Amino acid sequence: MTLTTELIEKLINAAKEEAVRRQFPPVNISVCDRAAHLAGFLRMDGAILGTIDVAHRKARTAALFEADSGALGKVAHPDGPSYMVEHTNGGLINFGGGVVIKDADGVVIGAVGVSGASVEEDEIIARAAAVAALTKEPAGHAA
Amino acid sequence: MTLTTELIEKLINAAKEEAVRRQFPPVNISVCDRAAHLAGFLRMDGAILGTIDVAHRKARTAALFEADSGALGKVAHPDGPSYMVEHTNGGLINFGGGVVIKDADGVVIGAVGVSGASVEEDEIIARAAAVAALTKEPAGHAA
Amino acid sequence: MTLTTELIEKLINAAKEEAVRRQFPPVNISVCDRAAHLAGFLRMDGAILGTIDVAHRKARTAALFEADSGALGKVAHPDGPSYMVEHTNGGLINFGGGVVIKDADGVVIGAVGVSGASVEEDEIIARAAAVAALTKEPAGHAA
Amino acid sequence: MTLTTELIEKLINAAKEEAVRRQFPPVNISVCDRAAHLAGFLRMDGAILGTIDVAHRKARTAALFEADSGALGKVAHPDGPSYMVEHTNGGLINFGGGVVIKDADGVVIGAVGVSGASVEEDEIIARAAAVAALTKEPAGHAA
Repeated sequence: MTLTTELIEKLINAAKEEAVRRQFPPVNISVCDRAAHLAGFLRMDGAILGTIDVAHRKARTAALFEADSGALGKVAHPDGPSYMVEHTNGGLINFGGGVVIKDADGVVIGAVGVSGASVEEDEIIARAAAVAALTKEPAGHAA
Repeated sequence: MTLTTELIEKLINAAKEEAVRRQFPPVNISVCDRAAHLAGFLRMDGAILGTIDVAHRKARTAALFEADSGALGKVAHPDGPSYMVEHTNGGLINFGGGVVIKDADGVVIGAVGVSGASVEEDEIIARAAAVAALTKEPAGHAA
Repeated sequence: MTLTTELIEKLINAAKEEAVRRQFPPVNISVCDRAAHLAGFLRMDGAILGTIDVAHRKARTAALFEADSGALGKVAHPDGPSYMVEHTNGGLINFGGGVVIKDADGVVIGAVGVSGASVEEDEIIARAAAVAALTKEPAGHAA
Repeated sequence: MTLTTELIEKLINAAKEEAVRRQFPPVNISVCDRAAHLAGFLRMDGAILGTIDVAHRKARTAALFEADSGALGKVAHPDGPSYMVEHTNGGLINFGGGVVIKDADGVVIGAVGVSGASVEEDEIIARAAAVAALTKEPAGHAA
């Protein structure tokens, strides 16, 4: 499974609908491919401008390290083993909201980054996209 | 009329469908708001990686100067009045494919940048998005 | 209410006069619009050169996050939920002196950033500008 | 004579009033000191966003080379002796609108950069500021 246009749209819609369904604040949703190049993006009405860049960096971080951005925070910390690694690669994010997208075989095919709500809410929204990647349902707005 | 999430999706879909309908090569589609902040993006399957950034810059150029990117090329030229202005604002694009999005009153509300096909094809695709902004039909995938 | 030229001048004058009235050190005053584009700037005689950029970043931070820069410092901290978010958006400021400008309805219309004195003094000066935005008095030098 | 806060305000007001008086389009006015550090800035209502950066670069170019930006264009051209010098110093402008500010002894004390109207109009506005620097009248809005 690869990150097709159809899958990109599906991931973005799943994230958007999760935010709406849970009545979370509007967020920015960024999707990048396995090589961390931007694949898709959507700003929801009223999402905080400063979180556009944060969403991109969360997705990039997850794709570049094949790990959720929150996991990086455990090592990229003044008391962690890789303090300052967050300054590499043009600037990474070391808190939640960047989640790897895997196919049914567990292979990383991209990542999604969400920002605009609380870190916990961003993470929930991003995980909804990761789950959607594994479902068979077609892309598009849910009924 | 403002650049709502629904309109962002409509612009991207209109551009994508124009590229498919005309059997143009796959493109990257970038949408930014009136102030040049990213609002939406979609990469079509197989679009050239290097054109992601080009699409963004086309949209940014059109929004920042309230003019299509091709118009900038007429002045940002060794023999034009504003030679090298294309190096301001972090790097602009002075050929076609960046088109302003106007509302029914002619007010600029954002811009779309398309890159991946020929400049003429990119321009046609971007213009399809600008036209869609003025139609009353709902956003979403065409039947 | 929008960030007109007249209001920009009023904000800068209010900040400058607050600094003079309280006999604070000279400061740099930066005003940006709602989308973080520079709208106005004034350097007071003798303001420290290195604080020009700090003033800009304080204003940008407040506009991009619709929150005073000091508030960012509470989350962008080794023990906070968004450690390192200050490195996004080209570099933000997570201490005081960047204040959002709201209209009478509480809508954010821009931000002011002040730097050159102590953080507490910068904050006081910036707040004077925010208060001036809500007064009916005309712009210009106070009598 | 040095570039005091009062003189910065005087330069900006003179430029603004010249633009209004001649019914030119709204412009961005940037003032920098002898060392090319920003000293003052004002965006007039409706000035094109993309010309904020152009105004800054015009002022910087004039201050760094102690020469009007238009003069650089004569040498920084594919057929000129210093082709590509416009790429130094972070990016210079080689067309009109950046003008050096001199004191009564002809010593360069700063520069003003204007952008937003045509190159010829920008230049006229910037020259009005340079002339104002030599007058004895106090700063502030003209009667």
